[in-house]
Amino acid sequence: MLTTLALVNRITDLYAIVPAGGAGTRLWPLSRAGRPKFLLDLLGTGRSLLQATVDRLEPLVAGTVVVTGEAHAEAVRAQLPGLGEQAVLAEPSPRDSMAAIGLATAVLAQRHGDVLVGSFAADHVISGDFAGAVAQAAVAAREGHVVTIGITPRGPSTAFGYIHAGRTLGLAEAPDARATRGFTEKPDASTARRYLATGDYRWNAGIFVARAQVLLGHLAEQRPALHEGVRELARVWDSPQREAALAEIWPGLERIAIDHAIAEPVAAAGGVAVVPGDFAWDDLGDFDALAAHLAGEQAGGEQVLAIDSAEPLVLGADRLVAVVGLDEVVVVQTSDALLVTTRARAQRVKEVVDALRTAGRDELT
Amino acid sequence: MLTTLALVNRITDLYAIVPAGGAGTRLWPLSRAGRPKFLLDLLGTGRSLLQATVDRLEPLVAGTVVVTGEAHAEAVRAQLPGLGEQAVLAEPSPRDSMAAIGLATAVLAQRHGDVLVGSFAADHVISGDFAGAVAQAAVAAREGHVVTIGITPRGPSTAFGYIHAGRTLGLAEAPDARATRGFTEKPDASTARRYLATGDYRWNAGIFVARAQVLLGHLAEQRPALHEGVRELARVWDSPQREAALAEIWPGLERIAIDHAIAEPVAAAGGVAVVPGDFAWDDLGDFDALAAHLAGEQAGGEQVLAIDSAEPLVLGADRLVAVVGLDEVVVVQTSDALLVTTRARAQRVKEVVDALRTAGRDELT
Repeated sequence: MLTTLALVNRITDLYAIVPAGGAGTRLWPLSRAGRPKFLLDLLGTGRSLLQATVDRLEPLVAGTVVVTGEAHAEAVRAQLPGLGEQAVLAEPSPRDSMAAIGLATAVLAQRHGDVLVGSFAADHVISGDFAGAVAQAAVAAREGHVVTIGITPRGPSTAFGYIHAGRTLGLAEAPDARATRGFTEKPDASTARRYLATGDYRWNAGIFVARAQVLLGHLAEQRPALHEGVRELARVWDSPQREAALAEIWPGLERIAIDHAIAEPVAAAGGVAVVPGDFAWDDLGDFDALAAHLAGEQAGGEQVLAIDSAEPLVLGADRLVAVVGLDEVVVVQTSDALLVTTRARAQRVKEVVDALRTAGRDELT
Repeated sequence: MLTTLALVNRITDLYAIVPAGGAGTRLWPLSRAGRPKFLLDLLGTGRSLLQATVDRLEPLVAGTVVVTGEAHAEAVRAQLPGLGEQAVLAEPSPRDSMAAIGLATAVLAQRHGDVLVGSFAADHVISGDFAGAVAQAAVAAREGHVVTIGITPRGPSTAFGYIHAGRTLGLAEAPDARATRGFTEKPDASTARRYLATGDYRWNAGIFVARAQVLLGHLAEQRPALHEGVRELARVWDSPQREAALAEIWPGLERIAIDHAIAEPVAAAGGVAVVPGDFAWDDLGDFDALAAHLAGEQAGGEQVLAIDSAEPLVLGADRLVAVVGLDEVVVVQTSDALLVTTRARAQRVKEVVDALRTAGRDELT
């Protein structure tokens, strides 16, 4: 049997940044504050979402850094022994994505000069021609653009933000790259359908590729204090002064997402490009998304008995689970908790975590 | 504080027969072939349904016998240490209610002469003025009637059979006793509403009171072979010949319910009376009935977190159970199984047991 082998060229001036944060409270009780979504092997592949992300990036890039909270740094290093100590940047406290990506970009610039950096979430699932999209993004980034990869929508989803693509950039090596006219928040259903009808809208997967100095330049312009903070930290990062600088600077850094700090204002000024991502992508945001992904390869197997119940999602079962008369039910068991809901209500699972915190039962969150 | 004490007179010529059979498959996974419904403390009172039944009967009667399968005889004796060895009659195999009640009646007649016998299911739940109804039933039974107690309906239930009451019997000591015009199977909803509108229909709880010789006389007339079998067994029951007689006679006994063997034909001939039962009664047939009974005194307590979910029934939880967006959901956990259904689908739980047996997973039934 012949196997089609996609030959991938390593992009030797591109470094991957993987921000690994966010508990994923809509995936409770699997995800916990101490065991966040990115550390979980949600798809039963034998690799956590973080490991799968790094597995996917490593052949494409010159190097990878993971930015994560101090509480998870040890677990991240344990899951990624091949990356080395220096590749895991530990944040003393959460300061949202701009601080994380800004710090990593500044550290990579300090270490390697004006390389390309690409930021890729630690807990998304991707299959298909990811490498081709990254290659075009790198080409456009070398031209000075901040480049995002816009996922070809599978349907008029209301669960994702959209990227509005404009004129083509006319780059020979990145023929599909277009200017970005703007970003939108999650739309309602009719707006989403209208977006899709135009052919110019794509899902925002939060992927950004840029030259380090371009990204830091935008940051200096948009958020000068934040820029100064991460630059200062980067200068001493690989020295004995790191801890002292973190203690002094980190708590004062602005909490802001890269979307608001850079992507939106720079797009408005014409500085953001978009490259289409024709690969399969999902953020596995809740059990509905997870069920769609696992459809047909039910993890529970012979531990699940469904009577008059279409498509149950049963995870973590350590005993027989019988479901009677409930379509698309979701049953998730851990050693200390059991969740029962439906795919349609999967978004509301985060309310369980809120209620547990209110009740002072933090050990279950 | 003054307590109203209902003074109960013991009916010194009445013996209670408690047929303890039936697995209660609609209450799986709590009820199992080896742990049937009547042995369970479903209401969390500290007493099993069987124990509560005997607790309720003992102050009213001269003695009690329990008829159960050989497999459960030891568990029954363990739950009822006060009854004594002789009070538990063990059947080698299930032969339906007529053989069980016929055998017990014949044994009681052999031991005590022409006493009154009353048959009361082992797995029903009763509260209120039960004693008053039994007292009137005993009076009517002494007059030669087979007497049933008809439960005052709480509504037009389609889950129970009905008793159609006719003319009053005019008994001074049993002023509410009436002739029974007949028995009906479970009706549809409109028929049930029609029944209730007449005021002459009552729920059939399967309670029968009669003189031993009257009951055995009807049995001799209606089912002579079955009568001969139980009489023969009764003659040797309290002797060393019991085992040999059981081995010889029991397997050949007809399988038939007392309703079909005696109650229906004798009612048609005018020989059955009905006394109203104005007490609260339920057969706890499924989790819907159990939920109704437990409403407001949820067993799960702080182990249950309900988000946008009205009236969950959670039983056996050994960890936090969070329910999101499912009204009247039923979650029942045991060490080897988990059931998820809704009150509306509670009747279909027995299909789980059928499916497990078909799959050869009898250890879970």
